[in-house]
Amino acid sequence: MWLNKDIVSIGDFSKEEILEVLERSENMVSYAKTGHPEKPLRDKIVATLFFEPSTRTRLSFESAAMRMGAGILGFGALESTSVVKGETLIDTVRIVESYSDVIVIRHPMEGAARLASEFAQVPVINAGDGAGQHPTQTLLDLFTIKRELGKLDNICVGIMGDLKYGRTVHSLSKALSLFKIDLHLISPETLKMPKHILKDISTKIKVQEHEDLEEIVQDLDVLYVTRIQKERFPDPEEYKKVAGSYYLKTSHLQKAKKSLIIMHPLPRVDEIPVEIDNYPQARYFKQAAYGVPVRMAILDLILRGE
Amino acid sequence: MWLNKDIVSIGDFSKEEILEVLERSENMVSYAKTGHPEKPLRDKIVATLFFEPSTRTRLSFESAAMRMGAGILGFGALESTSVVKGETLIDTVRIVESYSDVIVIRHPMEGAARLASEFAQVPVINAGDGAGQHPTQTLLDLFTIKRELGKLDNICVGIMGDLKYGRTVHSLSKALSLFKIDLHLISPETLKMPKHILKDISTKIKVQEHEDLEEIVQDLDVLYVTRIQKERFPDPEEYKKVAGSYYLKTSHLQKAKKSLIIMHPLPRVDEIPVEIDNYPQARYFKQAAYGVPVRMAILDLILRGE
Amino acid sequence: MWLNKDIVSIGDFSKEEILEVLERSENMVSYAKTGHPEKPLRDKIVATLFFEPSTRTRLSFESAAMRMGAGILGFGALESTSVVKGETLIDTVRIVESYSDVIVIRHPMEGAARLASEFAQVPVINAGDGAGQHPTQTLLDLFTIKRELGKLDNICVGIMGDLKYGRTVHSLSKALSLFKIDLHLISPETLKMPKHILKDISTKIKVQEHEDLEEIVQDLDVLYVTRIQKERFPDPEEYKKVAGSYYLKTSHLQKAKKSLIIMHPLPRVDEIPVEIDNYPQARYFKQAAYGVPVRMAILDLILRGE
Repeated sequence: MWLNKDIVSIGDFSKEEILEVLERSENMVSYAKTGHPEKPLRDKIVATLFFEPSTRTRLSFESAAMRMGAGILGFGALESTSVVKGETLIDTVRIVESYSDVIVIRHPMEGAARLASEFAQVPVINAGDGAGQHPTQTLLDLFTIKRELGKLDNICVGIMGDLKYGRTVHSLSKALSLFKIDLHLISPETLKMPKHILKDISTKIKVQEHEDLEEIVQDLDVLYVTRIQKERFPDPEEYKKVAGSYYLKTSHLQKAKKSLIIMHPLPRVDEIPVEIDNYPQARYFKQAAYGVPVRMAILDLILRGE
Repeated sequence: MWLNKDIVSIGDFSKEEILEVLERSENMVSYAKTGHPEKPLRDKIVATLFFEPSTRTRLSFESAAMRMGAGILGFGALESTSVVKGETLIDTVRIVESYSDVIVIRHPMEGAARLASEFAQVPVINAGDGAGQHPTQTLLDLFTIKRELGKLDNICVGIMGDLKYGRTVHSLSKALSLFKIDLHLISPETLKMPKHILKDISTKIKVQEHEDLEEIVQDLDVLYVTRIQKERFPDPEEYKKVAGSYYLKTSHLQKAKKSLIIMHPLPRVDEIPVEIDNYPQARYFKQAAYGVPVRMAILDLILRGE
Repeated sequence: MWLNKDIVSIGDFSKEEILEVLERSENMVSYAKTGHPEKPLRDKIVATLFFEPSTRTRLSFESAAMRMGAGILGFGALESTSVVKGETLIDTVRIVESYSDVIVIRHPMEGAARLASEFAQVPVINAGDGAGQHPTQTLLDLFTIKRELGKLDNICVGIMGDLKYGRTVHSLSKALSLFKIDLHLISPETLKMPKHILKDISTKIKVQEHEDLEEIVQDLDVLYVTRIQKERFPDPEEYKKVAGSYYLKTSHLQKAKKSLIIMHPLPRVDEIPVEIDNYPQARYFKQAAYGVPVRMAILDLILRGE
């Protein structure tokens, strides 16, 4: 059911379809280290069009493509300046589709990936479109929870940080609402989850908002931390005060379950101090690593299907 | 006859040699989509040295190399700054040739590819040298005509736009003069085909100059449109007036043959409006796509010969 | 004994280990041209993290990886700006290691590669860390001497140019001191080899310092020339005067042994004039070419061992 599909928004996919990706990803975990022995995508080319910097996502897609035997062509943000010089995104996509079998696109403009998918005859994967979507991040987030906790149902998930502007947490919240999850949103008043998303997910699962991690940390099975960006605050002093309250501390972990898993989409700055890296609960580097098997599964499903 | 040859200028090749590329390209069309099943260039490395931006040509060469199984290394315009830092082009070429089996070079300086070819012991392919040559573009242009029209002889070809500065149309005109073609050159007075080229091709085929596409559109089998660049005009008003007369309009197509094919080396700006993309005559995206099979054929001929 | 080892400094390796690389490199020389027929690293991914420009070293590593069948991902200096944005080197390394099997790193900060190697679980190869080390350059330098002269013992080696700041010559001198070599250091007073290095190597081999190549050129089996950088001199006139005395001249070669080999890590500027390129003694392009087999051997030893 994934063959030749575009992946623009996580909202386009059913729970069943998501579970199929997660299951396929499970098979890819060992191949993500050793390379798939059959190189099943050896005749495929993955185009990576990055109109905005995102070395991490790009390298993870490239690693996934290589582990499956596919070739890679494309450009990073800096080179893209020459591409767009007087050329529309649609023209670029219509040309690049004839050089490749699937297009992975990151673009600063919300809706760019959707637009590209409407014109391209090859499948398009959205690798982030401005304030919009980043669906493969959500899939790897779900995979991390499922694999590290062993389940996606009957768990208590906290998401902390900038819930207003972070595209990652919007997509993730929507996706989590497909499962039996108690969701706790932890953020400053000014960076709360937008009303329309809150309303949507509240109809499906139990959601509670908090301003302080202390209130809820002991109940959590998953704590998903995100960065609060300085740019969101006109006053640097205000930023410091607010952001500091959403830094994870080792004292939080003393109250937490031993089985808690801590996630972060990375890069992190101060919101998780490096001493927490050595705690068994820290799973954010593992989460980043799961980007490879999940993207291997996605490329495989889109390019080869069943 | 192509083994180990440099491809610097289309003028270096006979009609017979050109036809051999076109024939080999025909075999590559299906492999350009699926990858060549034998990966005949799996032991070869293609170096792409782009001292000037050209993402389209670079990606097309890279796709061609991958479809044949070859590896690719090189740099784009931005990285090249570090290469050239205090190093001559010749030194760069002499080093890179020991890392690769063929060098594809784009350089802002006319004659750069010729110079490189004189020092390199591996074959050099000119991917554009300033106002000079871009021979693989000409080969893909010829291939597009042959494949889309079914023939290269006894046809009527119009070339419209900036005929003075456009290296693409200079090479193409010379190559077309090897075949039985009626050539129509459509341009403003100030951007006419240079006298020395006109004189050369006029000895071989019938050439007529026009200032208005209306005069001749109904007779054409091929209309090759090129961009008129703003930079050529000191006065922006003058540019607007002149350039606008060389924009293709749907009204032109109503007078044209149904079998007309419209080509453009891309990127296009305003000279072909997007509504024409849906006309059956529009072949410029197909033309761009043919860059892959033609370059597959070229790499195969140069690196493996017969 | 090389399996999974980091290569941070040439000083970390014994003479026996170095000789093993040189021997393995010998086997790779023909494969560096044709590609290794077995593609022994076809399931491996080499990450190249270049936080500083070095197209030559990067392309040579990439060629080596491809010739062995490995995949390559990474970034050049320009793209790296986005990687480091608010992210520590350690975080970057911990993420990229999950996408790859070995990390090749160039970084402007001395000690960066060592730091990376302490955190990475995959092997790390130092491709230059500021004023620090560049051990694979030293290995290819040794290989060039061994292969071009036929031996590494009982020879007379001159190193000329900037001996104070050049990391290449520091590592090379230390490595040469493992063999039976008469070492001659030729430099201006202000750019002499640092005392601590001189002291170290003088305990092992005979070392003499010179200010003029004329004094010793007739005795040399190897002349290793390096660039004197303008930036080292506050006064451009002073630079001109000093640097000019360390330019190689054809008159020097008239006094030299016929069997002399001239080396240079490249890029060269004025210190070796192009007319010397045609002398049989000139081996610096061959030396650059040997970067491929030596790096093939290194990758093979680290990733596959015996």
